[in-house]
Amino acid sequence: MLDETLAAITAPDTDAVVEATERNDRLTKPRGALGILEDAAIKLAGISGQCPPPLPAPGALAIFAADHGVHAEGVTPWPQEVTAQMVANFASGGAAVSAFAKQVGASVLVVDVGVAGVVDASPGAIDASAGVLVRKVRSGTGNLAIEPAMTRDDARAAVEVGIEVAHRLVDGGARCLLTGDMGIANTTASAALIAAFTGSDASAVTGRGTGIDDEHFARKIDVVRRALTLHAVDTADPLGVLAAVGGLEHGALAGFILGGASLRVPVLLDGVIAGAAALVAQAFAPGVTAYCFAGHLSAEPGHSVALAALGLTPLVDLRLRLGEGTGAVLALPLLQCAAAALREMATFDSAGVAHKDA
Amino acid sequence: MLDETLAAITAPDTDAVVEATERNDRLTKPRGALGILEDAAIKLAGISGQCPPPLPAPGALAIFAADHGVHAEGVTPWPQEVTAQMVANFASGGAAVSAFAKQVGASVLVVDVGVAGVVDASPGAIDASAGVLVRKVRSGTGNLAIEPAMTRDDARAAVEVGIEVAHRLVDGGARCLLTGDMGIANTTASAALIAAFTGSDASAVTGRGTGIDDEHFARKIDVVRRALTLHAVDTADPLGVLAAVGGLEHGALAGFILGGASLRVPVLLDGVIAGAAALVAQAFAPGVTAYCFAGHLSAEPGHSVALAALGLTPLVDLRLRLGEGTGAVLALPLLQCAAAALREMATFDSAGVAHKDA
Repeated sequence: MLDETLAAITAPDTDAVVEATERNDRLTKPRGALGILEDAAIKLAGISGQCPPPLPAPGALAIFAADHGVHAEGVTPWPQEVTAQMVANFASGGAAVSAFAKQVGASVLVVDVGVAGVVDASPGAIDASAGVLVRKVRSGTGNLAIEPAMTRDDARAAVEVGIEVAHRLVDGGARCLLTGDMGIANTTASAALIAAFTGSDASAVTGRGTGIDDEHFARKIDVVRRALTLHAVDTADPLGVLAAVGGLEHGALAGFILGGASLRVPVLLDGVIAGAAALVAQAFAPGVTAYCFAGHLSAEPGHSVALAALGLTPLVDLRLRLGEGTGAVLALPLLQCAAAALREMATFDSAGVAHKDA
Repeated sequence: MLDETLAAITAPDTDAVVEATERNDRLTKPRGALGILEDAAIKLAGISGQCPPPLPAPGALAIFAADHGVHAEGVTPWPQEVTAQMVANFASGGAAVSAFAKQVGASVLVVDVGVAGVVDASPGAIDASAGVLVRKVRSGTGNLAIEPAMTRDDARAAVEVGIEVAHRLVDGGARCLLTGDMGIANTTASAALIAAFTGSDASAVTGRGTGIDDEHFARKIDVVRRALTLHAVDTADPLGVLAAVGGLEHGALAGFILGGASLRVPVLLDGVIAGAAALVAQAFAPGVTAYCFAGHLSAEPGHSVALAALGLTPLVDLRLRLGEGTGAVLALPLLQCAAAALREMATFDSAGVAHKDA
């Protein structure tokens, strides 16, 4: 399934990009006056192969949840059971991302790809706020500071869960895929992945996650550094890097991104977890970033490093450090507005508006 | 009408602010993880006097349009008639802000407060995309580089148009007011207002507007500098500053902001034109900024200077330089999401989610 998906990822449609660039220049506004939204609209044309591009709507958020063996190193003050508790909170619509998704009209699917506890996905356990899909590859990863996080087979299985979810959501009508995540300690695995793929020092890519004190922070940097020393990762082998220092949700997110690209559907990325996963996806298929948009800039330092390596510019910067997909969901109306401008605006000729003096 | 409005502006409700701050700390997320959206939600509680605050919806955009005598100085390559042509474009729904407003569900009212040409507001002339209200104080301002832009009476009349429009929209059900503007050459008047109120040098607050070459740019800075030398403005007399170097849309926007604050309705500001107008409003009533949100950060250098003086943090930064209200409209979903989180999220207790270790 992974190989088929990689083979299906092609370059964006250059004819549609050229047409969209020309159309953009005729719209009733000074050239470039809509800033990075103009680039986004043109990119959407290339992704869809249509000019103007269809609205990236409806949006569908997938929240991949999993636990992390590295939690044992004391990298976070949050108990591991919060992962499972937050899955239930997503299901009943009580999380931040639940409120945001309802507000912007995006659907929410929670996917248990490796939560340590039991996730109840029975119909009676959840209300209509979000679906829950159980695709548990294993109950959390191993401790990446002292052992591989998972086997290569587990890593591949996680990636394929993400591909499956992308297909499921697009088959269901979604025309924009949004990435979400939940996993206590997953900023540690994200830092390790970003350091591995970008060659950055652990201290440059490790942050305070959802808010930790100096002691936890020092320990977290040390853990990332030890992991990179322990595992002789080869970035030409993305499955190997993922297995060594990644998380199950990172694998699923990478697959979700690759799946969206293979289906020519735009993928709106959340913050640092998604950025780390996108580096995995990029290592599998360098062209995948042509289908990705960065929803927001996370407060985590590793996110800037990841976005630079991905060549993506974030749409919003609200100093969020929550995850869940909040930054992707908040950016969805902006991406939809970008497409709407290219679709609906009048041209100078059609509106009878004078152009500026040459 | 202005004096009554100023007298009606009171401080935000501190009880609601305290209650919202406490509620925010109990929600199922790490403290501060929603970044500046948490501050926005708490501010909305103070504005409305309710915790949680009502959603700032529906949103209503008013686009105040007017012309500028300083156009004669060659500060822009765009012909003056574009102002009237764009009013027609707003009315028929062909502008960028039209597409954005439709996408986020905001209504649009275009107000001719001083367009030099004739604006046709007859019912047959417009479709349902936007209403047009003609409240022409005069046909454009005088040339601020050589004479006062308008009389004090004209300035007051423009402010009162804005107050009237705020009342009209709130009476019609709006619960968030969004500022928009149209006026060829209005970044020049904005730069003059910002320089006057902040004491900044012309070169620090003058930008390239919608895109001008070096020659126009040098001329524009010189015009702003000459205007500030010619008019001995007194910032304790906001009506005097407005009359000397402002625009009719700046006056109306200032009144619109004051009107919203007097009605305890949040006002979402667009870019540099709104920022300049907000400085006028702040000079009338220092507490008015407690009711204002900065929608976006404009590419114009004067906007950063204005926002610093207003003490406002922009919600988005997309390198827009269009005006029309585009930056305010794009920020509306974010402000609504901020309120939705405080309204709808579960608490740690209610969701049964464990808190982090102390």
